[in-house]
Amino acid sequence: MSDMNQLWVLKKRPVGDLAEGDLELVERPLDPLKDGEVRVRTIYLSLDPTNRIWMSDVDAYLPPVGIGDAMRGGGLGVVTESKCDGISPGQNVLTGLATWETYCTLPGASVTVLPDLPGVPLTAWMGPLGATGMTAYFGLMDICKPKAGETVVVSAAAGAVGSMVGQIAKLQGCRVVGIAGSDAKCEWLTGTAGFDAAINYKSEDVGAALDKHCPDGIDINFENVGGDIMDAVIARLNDFSRMALCGLIATYNDKEPRPGPFNFANLLMRRTLVKGFIVIDYYERFPEGVQAMAGWLMEGKLKFETDIVDGFENAPASLDRLFTGKNLGKLVVRVSPEPNA
Amino acid sequence: MSDMNQLWVLKKRPVGDLAEGDLELVERPLDPLKDGEVRVRTIYLSLDPTNRIWMSDVDAYLPPVGIGDAMRGGGLGVVTESKCDGISPGQNVLTGLATWETYCTLPGASVTVLPDLPGVPLTAWMGPLGATGMTAYFGLMDICKPKAGETVVVSAAAGAVGSMVGQIAKLQGCRVVGIAGSDAKCEWLTGTAGFDAAINYKSEDVGAALDKHCPDGIDINFENVGGDIMDAVIARLNDFSRMALCGLIATYNDKEPRPGPFNFANLLMRRTLVKGFIVIDYYERFPEGVQAMAGWLMEGKLKFETDIVDGFENAPASLDRLFTGKNLGKLVVRVSPEPNA
Repeated sequence: MSDMNQLWVLKKRPVGDLAEGDLELVERPLDPLKDGEVRVRTIYLSLDPTNRIWMSDVDAYLPPVGIGDAMRGGGLGVVTESKCDGISPGQNVLTGLATWETYCTLPGASVTVLPDLPGVPLTAWMGPLGATGMTAYFGLMDICKPKAGETVVVSAAAGAVGSMVGQIAKLQGCRVVGIAGSDAKCEWLTGTAGFDAAINYKSEDVGAALDKHCPDGIDINFENVGGDIMDAVIARLNDFSRMALCGLIATYNDKEPRPGPFNFANLLMRRTLVKGFIVIDYYERFPEGVQAMAGWLMEGKLKFETDIVDGFENAPASLDRLFTGKNLGKLVVRVSPEPNA
Repeated sequence: MSDMNQLWVLKKRPVGDLAEGDLELVERPLDPLKDGEVRVRTIYLSLDPTNRIWMSDVDAYLPPVGIGDAMRGGGLGVVTESKCDGISPGQNVLTGLATWETYCTLPGASVTVLPDLPGVPLTAWMGPLGATGMTAYFGLMDICKPKAGETVVVSAAAGAVGSMVGQIAKLQGCRVVGIAGSDAKCEWLTGTAGFDAAINYKSEDVGAALDKHCPDGIDINFENVGGDIMDAVIARLNDFSRMALCGLIATYNDKEPRPGPFNFANLLMRRTLVKGFIVIDYYERFPEGVQAMAGWLMEGKLKFETDIVDGFENAPASLDRLFTGKNLGKLVVRVSPEPNA
């Protein structure tokens, strides 16, 4: 077991896209563990659009990461040492709102010990059973309340959240149309994930494609992207439609303020419900979401992909895969091997 | 009793502001009444921002008024003739979604016979007890769910809807800040209607004034206006805030598409609930709203003003008072005298 720790520290706030030098990889000796703490060797580090939000000094849902502080981010790891009752070395845990470190030192209360689910790989806890899966589950089920026969449109549909949203909506009997950034993703959505249709926003006219694939209009929009794609969806909402406002990734790297949707007035005319949400708002209900998702997973009803980048040193450069549409499914960095690998 | 009817007919769709010649006043003989119909002599014609929406060929919540058709609009009148059981000449009625006519010929089922409320003038049925009062009541109580101690901001606060929203919110124990377009209106809001503060958007920096009057941020926005004023409010919303999207009057005369709020992303960060609504969605619950509002009225807890323009011939030209901020309270055209006047 190492007594050295590597961590990514925020050196300066990115302007626009994250650039080399905004974060710095440093090495420090590990402090002795205090009572109540656990030490976790990071196996998978979760890369999410929200990492980019946390680097900016904007009024977001959490304070920004301080300059000189370790980058905020969670993942999955194995306990190497514990001074917390009920948590033992060798247990796999989710680290929640931790930091980009090879070894995280955390209060025992802030980690979640993972049960062993037969036939379910550990990576499922980074996807369908993790924060992105919970985002999809609660955003769709609690905010959008899908009914059989309704039409659901999800943007960033091949991403970790979007791919789950569409499959959960299918399980509710909805017609599901996904918007994604490549033909390969669109083929995965309709061929593997069971979406009714997929739109490649890079090669198709999104408005025209929505008209084609949503002949009865759009009842539910699970919004991950914002910008022009959201505007095209808003223009086609039905009366009493619902819109879970989950992410606006198209705007996170903006240097200048960007206008809101030109079709904003349609939210009034269509009596749409729009609800901004952050998955941590549902933290206390995670067990309910995990139970539902784990059930579907074990029945083989949820397909998921994990986009694995190897090497802790590649974390910052890999974040860009989310913003350029390179990843299919959940993007993680493999920092160290799985216990049984 | 006259056997001639006057009506305003839509001749062409306005471009931008309503202009002379867009509507035409015509005179026609009245047809004999059919079984089930009632004839109503219009006393007050309601002028509302939504009249302007109905003139445009846009995808709104109701189809636009057809070219050559009588302008859509409701009001209050007295029954002059009835072939509908249960409705008698001499009764005062609300005409709902009727038309701009001196005599409306309507199915009996589409009018609401008004009870006589001691001490409550007939004009209350055009304001607190009419569609605008119901808009305020259900938009605030059903969508925004105010809690004592919360801060409520309402735009177009001296209008028929806004003035009721603020007073109902005060009755719920909220801090209420109104935004209006003149010092006289602001004085009425704080002096007569009991608002905690009022902001004159024509002479003050709305953002700075909101900072001053909402030191704890904004929990509820009842939005009647849109545009820059809405943007300033959205920037100051609290976590888990609610926004009833009732009107966007700033945009109804636009000739070009207008961008949505620049602070749209704040709806996500603050986990705001935004709900577009139209009062007709609550039609079945009107008795509940009328009961609550009538109770407060008879207790003297609701102040209201009626901005009366005399003369049916002045209806189109008077609509502009809503868009230029000239009216205080409910704008109506007095088409004929009250029965006991």
